[in-house]
Amino acid sequence: MAQVGPLVASCGDPAGVGPECLVRAWQARADLSLPPFAVVGSATHLASVAGTVPVHAVASMEQAGRVFADALPVIDLGPLDIQPGQPTRKGAALALAALDLAANLAISDGASGLVTGPIAKAGLQDVGFAHPGQTEFVAAACGVKAADAVMMLAGPSLRVVPITVHVPLADVPGALSVDLIAGRIRIAARALIRDFGLPRPRIAVAALNPHAGEQGRIGSEEIEVIVPAVEQLRSEGYAVTGPMAGDAMFHAEARALYDVAICMYHDQALIPLKALDFDHGVNVTLGLPIIRTSPDHGTAFGIAGTGRASIGPTVAAIRMAADCAQRRAGADSQLA
Amino acid sequence: MAQVGPLVASCGDPAGVGPECLVRAWQARADLSLPPFAVVGSATHLASVAGTVPVHAVASMEQAGRVFADALPVIDLGPLDIQPGQPTRKGAALALAALDLAANLAISDGASGLVTGPIAKAGLQDVGFAHPGQTEFVAAACGVKAADAVMMLAGPSLRVVPITVHVPLADVPGALSVDLIAGRIRIAARALIRDFGLPRPRIAVAALNPHAGEQGRIGSEEIEVIVPAVEQLRSEGYAVTGPMAGDAMFHAEARALYDVAICMYHDQALIPLKALDFDHGVNVTLGLPIIRTSPDHGTAFGIAGTGRASIGPTVAAIRMAADCAQRRAGADSQLA
Repeated sequence: MAQVGPLVASCGDPAGVGPECLVRAWQARADLSLPPFAVVGSATHLASVAGTVPVHAVASMEQAGRVFADALPVIDLGPLDIQPGQPTRKGAALALAALDLAANLAISDGASGLVTGPIAKAGLQDVGFAHPGQTEFVAAACGVKAADAVMMLAGPSLRVVPITVHVPLADVPGALSVDLIAGRIRIAARALIRDFGLPRPRIAVAALNPHAGEQGRIGSEEIEVIVPAVEQLRSEGYAVTGPMAGDAMFHAEARALYDVAICMYHDQALIPLKALDFDHGVNVTLGLPIIRTSPDHGTAFGIAGTGRASIGPTVAAIRMAADCAQRRAGADSQLA
Repeated sequence: MAQVGPLVASCGDPAGVGPECLVRAWQARADLSLPPFAVVGSATHLASVAGTVPVHAVASMEQAGRVFADALPVIDLGPLDIQPGQPTRKGAALALAALDLAANLAISDGASGLVTGPIAKAGLQDVGFAHPGQTEFVAAACGVKAADAVMMLAGPSLRVVPITVHVPLADVPGALSVDLIAGRIRIAARALIRDFGLPRPRIAVAALNPHAGEQGRIGSEEIEVIVPAVEQLRSEGYAVTGPMAGDAMFHAEARALYDVAICMYHDQALIPLKALDFDHGVNVTLGLPIIRTSPDHGTAFGIAGTGRASIGPTVAAIRMAADCAQRRAGADSQLA
């Protein structure tokens, strides 16, 4: 296996469950065979969250790799006083600074991949965050157009890519086009080859309408947009099937036939993913020059500080980032 | 328990898997403790499907109840020559006649409930069937407006009611109204009380838009339509929650908090149901004077005659019809 450096994780909103999940993941590093990671956040705050867990401020990813076995390495953004579950403007500003620094450590300073902790969008907007979400922020930091950064949600049972994401349902049909669908599928396919070890990913495309439109009797988007996109991609050599009726593609037998389900809208992708893999979903951004994953949950202010937050998604996000980084490094070294 | 008569099952398209599933369910009647049922179809065709399984033509539901232990009771529609997987016009006409007679046996001739076998809609339309599906046909036979017959899909993990069904996705937002949502939920709630033994059903209502619309930032239907419907129903005493983000309501922990999920469109309801309960889904029609269930699958012409069709959905549909008939008879006898 190619040798890669430690991962970097942004702490997320310090009043949310992000910091405690990272601390508890570090505690479980040996039992779970987790790869080394550093956290970007407030060392004093993380130490207060950590209790007796040792926290060690570090100055570089290289130093983080050395101390990881004995302490949680923290790239320190300075002191912060904040209570669990009580988000503040200072906390939001620190979350934003952590995201920015962590992204840059992944882009150019030795972190092998970026794991972003959960943020509160409204709070970030109050401190000047102008992106719809972390994905778009990270894409911009990488110099990639937001439209070319593709969200994939991955769990043990299923991988899904929504073609449209935070779009009102009424605007979804009009937002779909052959170019949008084909473009996102190409990005997803390349990432599955490079980062997920799937030399010829099998791609299943969902229909928009019930029963895949029944040959135009229940909607025409399949005929006008989705079928042409599928045929275009097939002519380029991609292993694409569909459009399949949405409700016929997420039981175990159907899932065994593809590596990723391409969905037309948010809930079509997220409903099956969360129904099947609620506590293990990872949000991965495809199409970036860096590896970026995120646990698929929010700040959960309501349970922050209680120890009730599951570390499953954080652990899954760390593992997936490390696996992707290893594969990409391996693939790139073969090319070199 | 109240004593109720046998169920009646229409054979469905005779070239599909309907007849063989009913024959095999009868064979397993003792092992699975299935209640008595009669099949409406061609006795010669069912005998050819049955092989060595005894088939007995009967003239009434009462006679069906007496012979069920020893033979599959068939209400005979006359001879039919047809090959598995090769639908014909004659077969479609027989499927329609079977549906019609079976519905009438449930309405006024002693069948305690109706289980409809899978039909091919295109074939039925060729022989004069003018309804969108069997549900609407059965509603009309009962003298109930199609709009007042509510489809529920029920599996071991989940019950779902789609507010809109075979509607293009682009037309869903415009089809939703406070009256439509509240009306369907009232019908569903009454049926859950009367037929499903839930004295105060807990009803979770899904949002239409991603993240439940984020207070209007991603669509306004929650604010304009769904919240008013939920508030109206609450003021009438129903135990209704929502609108909930669609992707946050189908994992085990969320499902434990409600008895039925009300969904805004076909795939929002059917995707989680089939992802979780693919081989055990039952389609139940609520709001009718009779009990009506159906296995939640199609004719499966491609595997008809091979023995590969699972009898799980047929068995589940028979069981659910019998359970509902028992409960309704019990509830009605308490009222009498």
